[in-house]
Amino acid sequence: MNVLDSIMQRASYRGAYLPAPVPRADLEQILKAGLAAPSGCNKQTVSLIAVDDPAVLARLCKILVSGVSESAPAMICVLTRKIIAYRDRSFYVQDYAAAIQNMLLAIMALGYESCWVEGQITDKDRLGRKMADLLGVPAEYELVCYLPVGRAAETVKRVPKKPFAQRAWFNGFPGDKTDTEA
Amino acid sequence: MNVLDSIMQRASYRGAYLPAPVPRADLEQILKAGLAAPSGCNKQTVSLIAVDDPAVLARLCKILVSGVSESAPAMICVLTRKIIAYRDRSFYVQDYAAAIQNMLLAIMALGYESCWVEGQITDKDRLGRKMADLLGVPAEYELVCYLPVGRAAETVKRVPKKPFAQRAWFNGFPGDKTDTEA
Repeated sequence: MNVLDSIMQRASYRGAYLPAPVPRADLEQILKAGLAAPSGCNKQTVSLIAVDDPAVLARLCKILVSGVSESAPAMICVLTRKIIAYRDRSFYVQDYAAAIQNMLLAIMALGYESCWVEGQITDKDRLGRKMADLLGVPAEYELVCYLPVGRAAETVKRVPKKPFAQRAWFNGFPGDKTDTEA
Repeated sequence: MNVLDSIMQRASYRGAYLPAPVPRADLEQILKAGLAAPSGCNKQTVSLIAVDDPAVLARLCKILVSGVSESAPAMICVLTRKIIAYRDRSFYVQDYAAAIQNMLLAIMALGYESCWVEGQITDKDRLGRKMADLLGVPAEYELVCYLPVGRAAETVKRVPKKPFAQRAWFNGFPGDKTDTEA
């Protein structure tokens, strides 16, 4: 699939998944896509755990309670370490977001659906830490996001977005904020 | 270009650029790719300004002093607003990082090179604010990154990355951290 088409067609899928397993070769391609993302000062702050063992998936879903996409036959857990890139700055959020975006595109290119699930597991109840503990992840790593992976059992819907001219301009901010020049 | 190939072949380019202008149609496709990225609770916190006017580019480069990729015939400036997605949380960093990654892939798919330049303009000297002021950007927006766009005049080099088995695993963190099972 052409990269520009993939980018324009990607959507967050929150419906049910078909039970068919995701082959390891596909999961590896998705993980490699994530790791190929750039990272601030090349610190490679992102690590990944793909889960395709039904028993492990079931235990993770118990933690998620009313998690998104519990029926997915695979899940990718995104781990980060707040490594300093230079001076006192870490770009770990940028790093894992870029890796996630690569993986969402790779997932779609391979015919699967997914959804970026982050806020639900990084809130005060710290479900991400519980998931990390279940997976044996050391304390210096934070589990910040999971991506379900599988084939959609329902129709994929796209959310509407603001028009281009309200978010992008050439050579300067529009003089009048309602300016629709693009 | 196939999306998986694009993802695996992308590299940060810090060399000189050929002077040939980037057609508006290509810049629009790149901007659209950025805006197509997901955002936390669909808050669409990202806005973009593409600069292809040589006079504006020259003024921006004066601010950058020893900026990366000053010879690029176009530049995309990434703006963010810290809009709350829910409770007290904003996902603006994730949002703009995903948009940037989409744009880097689109830039590459169209035959251009680029580099994610963020730390240099968001440090204490706040060059990003000076760039934003020059572009007439209101105070509620922050200019956090720029992407040069153009054809490479030099060879594109890739930085080495850690092996897959040191960053990705299946169904749990490896028991021994030096485990190389993948």
